[in-house]
Amino acid sequence: MARIVGLDVLDVRFPTSRELDGSDAMNPDPDYSAAYVVLRTDEGPDGYGLAFTIGRGNDVQAAAIGALAPMVVGRSTPDTPAELAALSAELVGDSQFRWLGPEKGVAHMAVGAVVNAAWDLAARRADSPLWSFLAAMTPEQIAGLVDFRYLTDVLSEQDALDILRAAEPGRAERAAHLRSAGYRAYSTSAGWLGYSDEKLVRLAKQAVADGFGMLKLKVGGSLDDDVRRLRLAREAVGPDVRIAVDANQRWDVPVAIEWMRALAPYDPYWIEEPTSPDDVLGHQAIAAAIRPVRVATGEHVHNRVMFKQYLAAGALDVLQIDAARVGGVNENVAILLLAAKFGVPVCPHAGGVGLCELVRHLSMFDYVAVSGTDADRAIEWVDHLHEHFTDPAIVRGGRYLAPTQPGFSARIRDESLERYAFPDGPEWRDNPA
Amino acid sequence: MARIVGLDVLDVRFPTSRELDGSDAMNPDPDYSAAYVVLRTDEGPDGYGLAFTIGRGNDVQAAAIGALAPMVVGRSTPDTPAELAALSAELVGDSQFRWLGPEKGVAHMAVGAVVNAAWDLAARRADSPLWSFLAAMTPEQIAGLVDFRYLTDVLSEQDALDILRAAEPGRAERAAHLRSAGYRAYSTSAGWLGYSDEKLVRLAKQAVADGFGMLKLKVGGSLDDDVRRLRLAREAVGPDVRIAVDANQRWDVPVAIEWMRALAPYDPYWIEEPTSPDDVLGHQAIAAAIRPVRVATGEHVHNRVMFKQYLAAGALDVLQIDAARVGGVNENVAILLLAAKFGVPVCPHAGGVGLCELVRHLSMFDYVAVSGTDADRAIEWVDHLHEHFTDPAIVRGGRYLAPTQPGFSARIRDESLERYAFPDGPEWRDNPA
Repeated sequence: MARIVGLDVLDVRFPTSRELDGSDAMNPDPDYSAAYVVLRTDEGPDGYGLAFTIGRGNDVQAAAIGALAPMVVGRSTPDTPAELAALSAELVGDSQFRWLGPEKGVAHMAVGAVVNAAWDLAARRADSPLWSFLAAMTPEQIAGLVDFRYLTDVLSEQDALDILRAAEPGRAERAAHLRSAGYRAYSTSAGWLGYSDEKLVRLAKQAVADGFGMLKLKVGGSLDDDVRRLRLAREAVGPDVRIAVDANQRWDVPVAIEWMRALAPYDPYWIEEPTSPDDVLGHQAIAAAIRPVRVATGEHVHNRVMFKQYLAAGALDVLQIDAARVGGVNENVAILLLAAKFGVPVCPHAGGVGLCELVRHLSMFDYVAVSGTDADRAIEWVDHLHEHFTDPAIVRGGRYLAPTQPGFSARIRDESLERYAFPDGPEWRDNPA
Repeated sequence: MARIVGLDVLDVRFPTSRELDGSDAMNPDPDYSAAYVVLRTDEGPDGYGLAFTIGRGNDVQAAAIGALAPMVVGRSTPDTPAELAALSAELVGDSQFRWLGPEKGVAHMAVGAVVNAAWDLAARRADSPLWSFLAAMTPEQIAGLVDFRYLTDVLSEQDALDILRAAEPGRAERAAHLRSAGYRAYSTSAGWLGYSDEKLVRLAKQAVADGFGMLKLKVGGSLDDDVRRLRLAREAVGPDVRIAVDANQRWDVPVAIEWMRALAPYDPYWIEEPTSPDDVLGHQAIAAAIRPVRVATGEHVHNRVMFKQYLAAGALDVLQIDAARVGGVNENVAILLLAAKFGVPVCPHAGGVGLCELVRHLSMFDYVAVSGTDADRAIEWVDHLHEHFTDPAIVRGGRYLAPTQPGFSARIRDESLERYAFPDGPEWRDNPA
C-alpha cells in the first residue's frame, strides 16, 4: 500500500506584467503565479496541484496549502472514488480551518489545490488521463464524489443519478470523438486591454485563420475605447465569428446595463463578469435587461452554493467553471451536475498558470459522462506559459486535443520551478519586482 | 507628522476546546484565536487590530496580515476620515492581492484587521473611543468612508447622506443616553451545545437574574435534544424572555424549515445561520416558510455585496454584523447604512476573541448617527476571555457600558500575548495541542 509521505509547497511567479499579457480593467499588471503543491509518495508517481494567483499574496496562498499537510501526510494514497471523496470531505470540513472561509477564498483554494493533486496522483496511479479516469466511473461512483450539503433544495443525489444515467448511452462514442477531434476552444489572446488597436486586429484575424470560431475582448476601461475596439474586431472577423466581452467585475449593475446597450450594435456574444462575482441578484437584473446578449460568470464564483443560486435565479446564461478556484475536482463535479440540471452550457475559464491544462479534463469528462453534449460550449484558450508544463494543453484548428498522459496535467517542469521560484529564483533575483 | 514604522503580527490561541466553551453543531472543539496586528508608530500610541479564528489556520490568517505590511509601513498615520477611507480603499483594491478573494475569506479578514488597527490608532490619537470618534463626524465625512462600488443599485451616496442627515437631530441626547445607560446585550453563555441540561437551566436562570431579556441556544445536533433543551430553557425563563436559537450553518434548506417548525411551539425569537452563509436565496425560502420566527445571519457573511442581496431579497430579518469578518470599520459603516435603508435591526455577532470589545463601538455609533434607534437591537454577550483585553467589554444589568478609553479596544494585554503565543507560549508549550 502506497502512502503520502510529504507535502511540498512552492511559490512560483511568472513576470507577465512586463508585457501586459493578462491586463484587464481590474487587473492592470498581473504576475501570473502558482502556489504549487506536490504530494510525495513512498512508491510510484507523486501528485501535483496548484492554486492560481496573480502575484502579491501567492505566499499566503502557499502558506494555506502548507497548513493542510497534517491532514494529508501519512495517509495511504487515495485511489478509489470513495477514498477521494473522503479526502475532499475531510479537507473541506475541518471544523477549525473551515472558519477561514467557510468554503471560499484562500482557504478553499488551498483545499482545491490539494484535492486536485490527490486526483492527479490517483489518475497517474491508474495510468489514465484524469478525464477518462473520471469518465470510466459508474453514475453511483460519480454521484458519490459530491458533497450534497446545501444543494438538496435544488439538486438531490437522485437528481444527480438521473442525469448521469441519462448520459451513459454514448459514452464510448463521445470519448472516441474527443480522441479524434478534441473539444472546441475560444481565444482570448487577441483582446487584452493593454494591446494596441493594430495588435488587436492582427491577432483577431490570426485567431480566425487558426480555426477559432469565437474570440474574447477585455472591456470596462473606457466606453469609447470599448466601442472602437469591438467595432474593429467585428470588422476584422465578420458577422459569423462570436465575440464575447469581459469586464472583469468592473461595473455596478446600472453601469453594466448602460455599457452593454452601447456595445450591443456590434453583437457581443456574452458579457463576462459584468459586476461583483458575489452579486447573484445583480447578475439576474443585468441578464434580464440585456438579453439576447448572454451573461457569463464563474472564475471568481467561490463555491457550489453560489453557482446553485446563479442557476436557480436565472442569473447566468453561460457557466464558467475554474479548475483552481473552488474545492477541486469533487466540487467541480457538483457544479457540472448543477449546470446539467438547468441545461446551462459550461464554458470554462482558463489561461493563467495551468488552468488550460487542468480544466480541459473537466469539460471532456462533462461531455462524455454528465451533460453528454458540447453544444454552445467552448474552453477558453490563452496561448502563454504552456511551455512550463510537462503535459501542456495543445490546441489545433481551434480545438483542444484530448490529453493522453496519465494524471491531471498540473505538473510544472523542474527547470521552470527553479527559474521562477519567488523571490529567490534567478528570474526574480536578477530582476527584482 | 507621525508615521507607521512597523507592522507586527502575532498568532495567539486560547485553549477553549478543553472546556467545550464555544461548542456548536459545526464547531465542536474550537480554540478561540486571534491573528493579532500592531501598527507601530514613531510617536504617540500604536494601533491594535485582530482577525478572529477558531484555531487551525490562525497562522495562515497571520501570514495574510503580514503580507499587507508593505502597503502600510512608511505611511503617515491616517488621522482624518479621508485618510482612513484612502487606506481602506488601497488595501481592499490592491489589484494583485484582491485576486485571493475578491473581498472574502482570509485575504479580506486580513484587510479588516489592518483597517481596524488603523481606526484604533486614529481614535487613540484623537483621544476618543472609536464610537464617539465616528459619531462626531459629519454625514459627508461618514458617507465618504464608504466604498459604494457594487452598492449603487440599492444604496447610493445620496441615500447614505439622507439617512445620516435624518439621524443628526438627537445625536447628543443618544450619546448621553449611552454614557448613562449603555446598550442592550443578549447572552449566549448558557447555550453551548456541549453543556449539560442542568448547566443550561442554571445558566439560563442566572442570565435572567443578571438582567438579560434575551438568551440564545445552540441547536442543530439532534432534533430531540433541541426540543428538550429549548423546552427546558423556556420553562426556566418563562414566556417573556426572548430565546433565539443558532444552528451555525448546520442544515440544508428543507431541513431548516422542518426543524424550525418542530421548535416553533417554544417560541424561538430567531433562527440564526440556519444554512450556508452564502445562500441568500436559501435564507429567503426559509424566512418565507417560518415566519413569524425571524431569520438572522451575518457572522460569516463576507462582505457588503452579500448583505446588499440579503436585504434586497428579504432574506434576513435581523442583520448580524461582525467586527472582524469583513473589511473593517469602513465596510461595516456601509453595512449599517444598508440595514438602515431597509429598516432592518442590527444585532451584532460577538464572543470569540475581542469581538465584544470591538463591535459594541459599531452598534453605539449606529445608534447615535446612523439608524438613530435601538429598538429590537441587542449585542451578543459571551462572558469569557475579556480578562485578556486592556479595555474589556463590561456588561451590567444586561447592558453593555459605553467604552470610555480611547481607541477601538482591540489591545490584548502583554502578559496574555506572551502566555498564549502559539505554538511557543507557555500555555501551549506545556500542553501541546
